This record gives sequence, C-alpha cells and structure tokens, in this order.
Amino acid sequence: MITTGSSGTSPRGGTAGGAGQDHYEGVFPNSRRVFQDGPGGICVPMREIVLSGGEPPLRVYDTSGPRGPDLDGGLPRLRETWVAGRQSRREGPPVNGSRPVTQLQWARLGKITSEMHFVAIREGVEPEFVRSEVARGRAIIPANTRHPESEPMIIGRNFAVKINANIGNSAVSSSIEEEVAKLRWATLWGADTVMDLSTGKRIRETREWILRNSPVPIGTVPIYEALEKVGGDPADLTWEAYRDTLIEQAEQGVDYFTIHAGVLLRYVPLTARRVTGIVSRGGSIIAHWCLAHHQENFLYTHFPEICEIMAAYDVSFSLGDGLRPGSIADANDEAQFAELRTQGELTKIAWDHGVQVMCEGPGHVPMHMIRENMDKQLEWCHEAPFYTLGPLTTDVAPGYDHITSAIGAAQIGWYGTAMLCYVTPKEHLGLPNRDDVRTGVITYKIAAHAADLAKGHSRAREWDDALSKARFEFRWEDQFNLALDPVTAREYHDETLPAKGAKLAHFCSMCGPKFCSMRITDDIRKYAAEHGYPEAEDLVREGMADKAREFRAAQPPG
Amino acid sequence: MITTGSSGTSPRGGTAGGAGQDHYEGVFPNSRRVFQDGPGGICVPMREIVLSGGEPPLRVYDTSGPRGPDLDGGLPRLRETWVAGRQSRREGPPVNGSRPVTQLQWARLGKITSEMHFVAIREGVEPEFVRSEVARGRAIIPANTRHPESEPMIIGRNFAVKINANIGNSAVSSSIEEEVAKLRWATLWGADTVMDLSTGKRIRETREWILRNSPVPIGTVPIYEALEKVGGDPADLTWEAYRDTLIEQAEQGVDYFTIHAGVLLRYVPLTARRVTGIVSRGGSIIAHWCLAHHQENFLYTHFPEICEIMAAYDVSFSLGDGLRPGSIADANDEAQFAELRTQGELTKIAWDHGVQVMCEGPGHVPMHMIRENMDKQLEWCHEAPFYTLGPLTTDVAPGYDHITSAIGAAQIGWYGTAMLCYVTPKEHLGLPNRDDVRTGVITYKIAAHAADLAKGHSRAREWDDALSKARFEFRWEDQFNLALDPVTAREYHDETLPAKGAKLAHFCSMCGPKFCSMRITDDIRKYAAEHGYPEAEDLVREGMADKAREFRAAQPPG
Repeated sequence: MITTGSSGTSPRGGTAGGAGQDHYEGVFPNSRRVFQDGPGGICVPMREIVLSGGEPPLRVYDTSGPRGPDLDGGLPRLRETWVAGRQSRREGPPVNGSRPVTQLQWARLGKITSEMHFVAIREGVEPEFVRSEVARGRAIIPANTRHPESEPMIIGRNFAVKINANIGNSAVSSSIEEEVAKLRWATLWGADTVMDLSTGKRIRETREWILRNSPVPIGTVPIYEALEKVGGDPADLTWEAYRDTLIEQAEQGVDYFTIHAGVLLRYVPLTARRVTGIVSRGGSIIAHWCLAHHQENFLYTHFPEICEIMAAYDVSFSLGDGLRPGSIADANDEAQFAELRTQGELTKIAWDHGVQVMCEGPGHVPMHMIRENMDKQLEWCHEAPFYTLGPLTTDVAPGYDHITSAIGAAQIGWYGTAMLCYVTPKEHLGLPNRDDVRTGVITYKIAAHAADLAKGHSRAREWDDALSKARFEFRWEDQFNLALDPVTAREYHDETLPAKGAKLAHFCSMCGPKFCSMRITDDIRKYAAEHGYPEAEDLVREGMADKAREFRAAQPPG
Repeated sequence: MITTGSSGTSPRGGTAGGAGQDHYEGVFPNSRRVFQDGPGGICVPMREIVLSGGEPPLRVYDTSGPRGPDLDGGLPRLRETWVAGRQSRREGPPVNGSRPVTQLQWARLGKITSEMHFVAIREGVEPEFVRSEVARGRAIIPANTRHPESEPMIIGRNFAVKINANIGNSAVSSSIEEEVAKLRWATLWGADTVMDLSTGKRIRETREWILRNSPVPIGTVPIYEALEKVGGDPADLTWEAYRDTLIEQAEQGVDYFTIHAGVLLRYVPLTARRVTGIVSRGGSIIAHWCLAHHQENFLYTHFPEICEIMAAYDVSFSLGDGLRPGSIADANDEAQFAELRTQGELTKIAWDHGVQVMCEGPGHVPMHMIRENMDKQLEWCHEAPFYTLGPLTTDVAPGYDHITSAIGAAQIGWYGTAMLCYVTPKEHLGLPNRDDVRTGVITYKIAAHAADLAKGHSRAREWDDALSKARFEFRWEDQFNLALDPVTAREYHDETLPAKGAKLAHFCSMCGPKFCSMRITDDIRKYAAEHGYPEAEDLVREGMADKAREFRAAQPPG
C-alpha cells in the first residue's frame, strides 16, 4: 500500500515524515514523498514524480529522509523499537560475541530483521534474498544499533549501486552548521551514505550533529580523531588511544569505519618508488607509524579486538585501501595488490566475528586496468562488497575529476562494485562547497544509474523510458521533473527559450520550429498510421528490387 | 628541430604564427606555441608547457591554430602551395575521377603527401605508417583542397582519439560573429574538428566566415542548406537542389559532409514503434521525403554522383547515422543496425571512387551494449573510422549529458572509435554558450585522453605522469599549467586558499598542514632513505614470522 507523506501514515508522525510538495525544498518539483507499507508497521519512503499527459507517476529511491523545520532535536528514531525488540531477546553486556547483534549474525540465524524487510521493499526484491545476500557476506546493511535515525539501505552487487558523499570540516575551514547543511544537501540529491572526514578541533561535536540528523548511514575514519587525541604526530599513536576512539564513535552511532588494517609494514617500501607514493591519509599515517616504531601496523595486530568492538554495535568494516594508487602511473602495482590480498584475509576474520565487511578500492586507474581490480577483489575478498573511489581514468584534468572518475566509476559499477565514493570538481584542489557537493552527487548518481542499466537492474530502465517518452512527446515539464537535477535542466532550457510558452512548444531550441526531428518523426508516424505500415513495407519489398538494379547500374565498373 | 612561434620560423610569418605567451589568450599560462620542422618546410605546431623545478617542458598536441589581432582576412593559407603543387601535376577538369586528388588516392599510389608528413610529426609516428593507414581506409585526413587554412589532422583508431565540437546558429538565436567566436574558442581548448550545423538564413555567409578562420577541418550536414533552399518542406527536396548545395559547399572548402545515405525507405517503418522514433535531424528529413514520395532515399540512389563531386575536392564522407537511437530503450535495434550495414555498403562504393570515409555512430546506448556497436562497425564497415556521438549511457540526466555521454565516449574510444562528437551540458535543452562549449570540449578531451591511455597510445602517459609528479611535489603552478583547463583548476584552488603563499605550500586545503598524506609520504621516503630500504625489508622478513604467530594466536577459535 502506498501512502503520501502528508496523509499522516508516516512512522515519524506529524510533518516530520515529509510534507508533500515542500518536502524536497523546491529541488524536485512535482515530486512527493510517499510510503510503501511493509510487515510490522514498516513504512518505506519513496519519491513519487507526478507526470502529465495521463502518464502514471514514477516512484524512485529516496534518500532525503525526514525534513522540516521541527527537526532541531534530530531526526525521528525510526529503528529504535526494532533494535530494542531484538536486544530484549538477549542478555549480558554489549561486548559479547556469543549473542547476535549484527545483521550478519541475524541473517546467518535465518532471521529476517526489520531492516531487511525495509531494504527488500526499497529495492523491490524478496526479503529472503536480502537475508541470504547478507548471510553470505555479499551485501551489508550498515546500521549501528546506536544510530536509530537511519533508514536501512543495502550495499551489495546484486542491488542498486549506491553512492557515498564525503563531507567534513578541516583544519583550514568550515563549521559544524555547514557540515550538517552539506549532509542534508547531499542526501536530498541522492547520497546513499555520507562519510564524515572531519579533522578539526570540534570533531566529536560535529559528528554528533551529523549522526542525529542523518537518515543515511554515516562512515568515519577513526584514526583521524585518534591522531587528534595524541597531538597530531602519527608516531605517538597507540592502540589504546585508537581503541578508545573506536568505542566512543561506535557509541555515538557511526555505521561504518574505514580501517587501514591492510597496510602492512612490509608493503610500505613498495611505495617508495611510486610517482605519487601513498596518497591515502589513513594509509600514510599508518605507514609513518610502522616505520617510526619498526613494528607491524597495530590495526592489523589488534584486528580481532577491533572486530569485537564493532560486532557489539553492528558497525560495519570498510577495509581501507591505504596504498591505493594516486596516479595512473601507480595503478595496479605490487603495493596496491599486496594490500588487497590482506583485505581479503581480514574479511574472513571479521566474518568470523560476525562483523559486516566491505572493501575499499582505488583510486587512479586507466580504463584497461579497471576490470583487474574488480576481478581480484571478488576472488581475494570472497565477494565482500567493493567500495571504490572513482576510479579516476586520467590525471590531466584537475577541476574536472568528477568526470575523470565518473568514467571509471560507471565501469567498475557495471563490473560489480557495490558503492561508489563520489569525487567533486574540487578534488585535488580544495574543499567542496554546496554546488560542488550537488555536482558530485549528481555525477555519481549518473555513474551508478548507468551501471544499474548495464547490469540489467530490474527497476533502472523504467526511469530512462519515462524521461525519454516525455522528451519525445514534448512534455517539457515532465522531462525536467524526471531529471536527476530538475532545477538545472529547467535553468538551461530557460536560458535559450525563457518564455513560458516554450515549455509547451512542440519544438526545441536546438533546431527551431522548422527542423525539429521529433516533430518530423511524429509526422512520419501519423503518415504511416494513415497509409499503414504494411503498405509501406509492401512498397519497399516491391520497389527495392528495381531500385537495387538501378543503383547497381549507376555504379562505375570496378 | 623545435622553434618557438615568436622566433620567426612559423610558416605563417609575422605574429600570425603565434606570439609566445599571448598566443593562448591567457587560458594556458606558461604555454608557448612551438613548431617542429618536417620535410619540405613543414612546421608542425605544438603547445609547450614550461615547468619549474628543473623539469623538462611538456609538448602537447595543439589545435589552436594561428591567432592574433591581424587575422580579419582569414587565417594564413598553409596548404595552398602543397595543393597547387599536386594539382600542377595533373590536367583536366576538377570532376575527373581518373586523376588523383584525394589523400586516399595519393596514398594508394604510394605518395606521402605534405599533409601526411605533417600528421606524422603531429602524432609522433612514421610518415609511411600514416600513408598505409590512409591507403587501406582505416584513417582519413579530412582536407578539402579549397580549405588551405586547415592544419592537417588524422582520424583513425591507430592514432590519438579526436574530438569534434558542434557549433551553428539556429532559427532561434545567435549571430555569425558568435559562431566564429565559438569556433575559435572550441579550437583553443582542443577541438580537433568543428561541425557547422547552422540552419538559419545566413547559412552560407556563416560558413564562409567559419572556413576562412578555421585551423581545423570543418564538417557540415548539407541537407540543412538544401532544405532551406526549397523553402523548408522536406517533401520539396530534390536531387538537383541537393547536388548544387554539395558543389557550393565543396567549393567553399568544407572538409567533410555528413550524408544520411543509409536511411533506406524500408528501414523507416522499423522506427515507428521506438520510444523516441528518429532523433537525427538529417535522418528524419530523409525519412519524411522517402514516405512522401514512396521512393528510395535520393542520397542512396545518387550516391555514385555524390562520390564524384566529393572526390574532386577531397571532401570526406561522414556517413550519417540517421536512425541512431535517441534513448536507451531504442539502442542497438533493427533500424539502427540495418542502417549500419548500409553504411558499410556505401563505404565500399566511396572507396571505389577514391573518397575518404568515416561512419557516424550513436547516440544513446547503455554500457553493456556499447561494444556491439564497435564490433559490428569494424566488421560491416571494413574498418573505416568510427565517429560517435557519445554515446549517452543513461537518459535521466538532462543538464549533465556531457557526463552521461563522456562515460560512453571514453569506453567506445577505448574499443576503437576514432573521433568523439562532443555533447555539452545543454544537450536536449538549449543552445550551448561559450561556457558550455568549453565544458563540452574539456569533457571530451578527458574521454579521448582516457581512451588513449587505455589503448596504450605512446605519448598519452607522459602528460599524466608530468601532472602527477607536479602534484606530488607540491608544484602547484605546474599542476595548474598542466591541467586540461588551467583556469578552472586555479580558480578552484583559490576559492579555498586564495593567498599566493598557498601556491608554494607543502600541503593542500583538503587535509590542512598536519594531515597531508603527500607530506607524510615525503617523510617516509626521507626516513627510508636514511634508514635504507633493505633494512626495512629485512626487518619485515625477520619480524613477520613472529608477528604472524602472535596474530594467529590472538584470533578466536573457529
């Protein structure tokens, strides 16, 4: 059953669950937030785009979350009762691997959680399929039990390809308010998860604001805060400082941790002759620590303890690729693949602890070397979901790295990557502003959707077909409203043909009224309908023999 | 021998050949136009990017052409003496297939023309290789004998992937001056050819201005002007009106004609059930004519005569794909591939007349269906160069179709497409302005370069490596200057760190001074250099056995 947000059936109550036309803050005209009911009172949000011309509305995946002016206290706690219901059925302290906590553990026990039901409706698949994919580790539902505000989503290659947007203040600029605004902005446009990469002084407070206001899973790189704690010198990092940070962040509700446990001491010298060395922040911090102490990476040696902490809260691993290539020259080298093998080893250990796992991937990779990344990851990491940064397919276009990377992201998404980490136009150059975040998200929605189409995802094509049909029928408003970014589509049309009448015109600005090919095709259809296709076909069959003879006769010899 | 434009060795003389720093109108700081000498006084322009830090300058392909304030009378006529020299060796009227005129005819005779020598230097290959590729039809050098202003370039899959930019006024807006400015702007940024798709009243005058000011080959779709001549109704088109248009445009110097000779009457009904029918302007005009007259496409029936006209001036064919898919739903359908087969048939006929040929391709194609296009084109069209529009890999992002299509363009370029027709952000929505043209060109330079890298083009990697090295060494100015769009790269950096000192900083705005991974890697290198790599490696070998034991011991059973 589908209900609209304004009808009061939202699980959030009142206007917080979505307020019809205004829910999308003007960026998706003619869209309304609706809910599809599932078992146990589950209400799954979708964005419904209302069309003209007698066309049925189109429902699309919706990451925008509850919105409205009355959300200062954070979002409604959608999952609170689900989590509590499961916890009431177990005993003992939270850190106890023997009782099920994680989605992986429940899935293995054959239990379809509320999160799985939610995801099944969201993806249009059977709940049992969701459970089985989670159980075998081929998909994850990042959902910290302490982040009840999140709307469950799934990352796995047999589901829609997801995208992540990075936000985070830095030592150089930006405030907490700005970061929360970026989070809301990114999810409004379609970010499926958000990573908070803050490194500044108010790192914990920033994260709290982000978590309490995020309808999507939040990822972090805990070593940034651990480093802050010890004063900023990687050599001063300790397992204890790191462990405390992990626990604090897990308590806050972070849904997945990037942990660079695969950067082993013996891999570090492999990077010294690279064109761009180690470009991952986390990777370089760990490498520095390893060399300073002549010791193995403490994230590797303490990995089982890390697993225990994460299992207690159902924090998922995003096994970092600290040695990813930072340039075309360094792609697919020994250092990168050595770490990938170790990511595979760690995946097994995490699974043994019941912790959900995805693996991070590159980076900068030319097109012909992309597939090798996917193939090796699938083999070595036992089909755990792959989560890549691009990859960027050339280094020569700073300022356009959303595009250099969308080319690679679409490809690797097609090959099987489950989530794509966005890249904004500011990559390598500066911090993204609101426009950059929007550009990054839309660019990656394109890459993910192109991958879904190429993979034959059951629901992907209907969106393209609806838009193309609107385009062909000169339903301009529908074409704008169906666009990933309706605002920009309309602005561009207005630049050339600002008059309101132009939105009703049966021609477009590229060709003008006389030449419009779509108008001519329309005429052809009418003509064919009047004269009948069979006639035209008969005519062809009859006429072609003569024509072909004429044609051949007209050709010169030889 | 390499000389700079300002040294006076330019074949154009004076400042017209390039004036050092100012040649690029401020868009490529620290670049200068230089010339590499070839046989017979040939001077091939290149853009040389001067770097700091003791790095050698990088030379890149340069399409900007002669520039300067004294070019009101058109560009210098570089090829005039070459053409005259060849023509003096033959007799008879221009329309005479028995005497060599075209690059294809000369190549078959074993003659390496000046154009081929020029191209060989430009591409960094042997002149004989250029000749042999042209002779077998696998590459074309579009170079009308009446367009002596053009700098020879080659389109073929064993050379750098090229890009085309479309310009052209329309019935709705834009002036001749604007179109010439767009031409100059597009070639400044890197367009390898430009198509003039004008459809307005001053179509012939516009084209004259464009040709006399174009350093790159110009393509047109002659049926647009023919239709203008007969008053705008496709049904009124005649072979005579079309033929006269062809001759006039060939006389003016157009280098390649898009001719939709493959749209056969019997293919037209195949499009009637498509989601987006016929979206090619030329294709729909022809389809309309065919149905109106119940006759076969006159471009097909008169194809040998068309070949004779084009051979006389060395105008190359761009065999149009009038039935290309206009949506994902219509990709790779019967209509599209029927026409492609006919393009192959026509290719052979054109070759029999000594005319150079490339074939146009789609359009809208999801990623998994792209390769089939390339494979069939290679097979059916006998390896004639493929020239595709994108393809767009999804329909859902009007306003971002430069990106939806760059994803497909990069892939099909890798698979073997020789030239990519750009798509701007205004595609489907409006006419591109200057910013859109720049965005379209840069986006397609990215796709083409990514394809060159994937194909292993000999010179492609050096550009990426130079930029990545500059990036890693914090040579910010070099990084900007090496970018495809230095202006935008610098602007983005300035937004976050505007101070001039930031351009010298050994950190970047994303991480701030403490966290910069590149700085840390630098430290690692210093550390490794002091302590020695072997020591680190020994340490690893010795230490790992113990560590591994510890690690395994720490793991829980099972």
